[in-house]
Amino acid sequence: MKKIFTFALLATALAYSASASAQFAKPEDAIKYRKSALFVMQQNFGRVAAMASGKVPFDAKSAAESAAVAEFMSKLPWAAFGEGTDKGETRAKPEIWKERAKFQEYAEKTQAELTKLAVAAKAGNLDAIKTAVAATGGTCKTCHDAYRKE
Amino acid sequence: MKKIFTFALLATALAYSASASAQFAKPEDAIKYRKSALFVMQQNFGRVAAMASGKVPFDAKSAAESAAVAEFMSKLPWAAFGEGTDKGETRAKPEIWKERAKFQEYAEKTQAELTKLAVAAKAGNLDAIKTAVAATGGTCKTCHDAYRKE
Repeated sequence: MKKIFTFALLATALAYSASASAQFAKPEDAIKYRKSALFVMQQNFGRVAAMASGKVPFDAKSAAESAAVAEFMSKLPWAAFGEGTDKGETRAKPEIWKERAKFQEYAEKTQAELTKLAVAAKAGNLDAIKTAVAATGGTCKTCHDAYRKE
Repeated sequence: MKKIFTFALLATALAYSASASAQFAKPEDAIKYRKSALFVMQQNFGRVAAMASGKVPFDAKSAAESAAVAEFMSKLPWAAFGEGTDKGETRAKPEIWKERAKFQEYAEKTQAELTKLAVAAKAGNLDAIKTAVAATGGTCKTCHDAYRKE
């Protein structure tokens, strides 16, 4: 009985890892994918952040569009941190693969913060945008400090 | 009077080009942005195409997700082909900036094809997915043949 249970667990784990890595033909593709998604996310977040800080005049329509793109992009990078994608053209620290739960927590926090930003931007509420930009920026920094090489 | 009109035209043109280029801090950012967006689009399109060709077993949920991401991404690259972004780490041919209307037509066709693919995938209709994959692939190729260096 114990043997069957262990086998079932192993089979589930293998199926999971196969489906996660099957998304990408090569580890390099996964690395390029997460960097691409994060770059598009950062550029759009940056546009709203520049308005929040007053560096660029506030344009409600443009802020709402950029925030919506940043929110959408925030869902994409994480599936590309699968097993075997820790080596190569990446600044990702090995800790990501040792502290999956904590990394996943930051990933979810990033998505939650950017959803708040998208809601604030859609409402055209500059004060709420400023709050959400600060919160998002803080989450970016915390995660980069922990999991990205200089 | 003619002078005022010319000035107004010039001011409009300047404002337009300022707002288009203001999205990116540097031309390199625009180039990286469009490459990133196109890569994320291609990867997601590729997943659905692999199912359409039978290389990968058809998974309706996964196809719908990937097609939705590809559709979203198809809106992003084109704004990053602004003036001054024809030089650098890019395979974009100079013709893009000489044949704006034709390039724009391909950009819109890509978006329209990927919307059809997303609709077909959401409905779980494999035959419609195959048709839309073929049409999208054809548009990719036509545009790359015309506007991307080898």
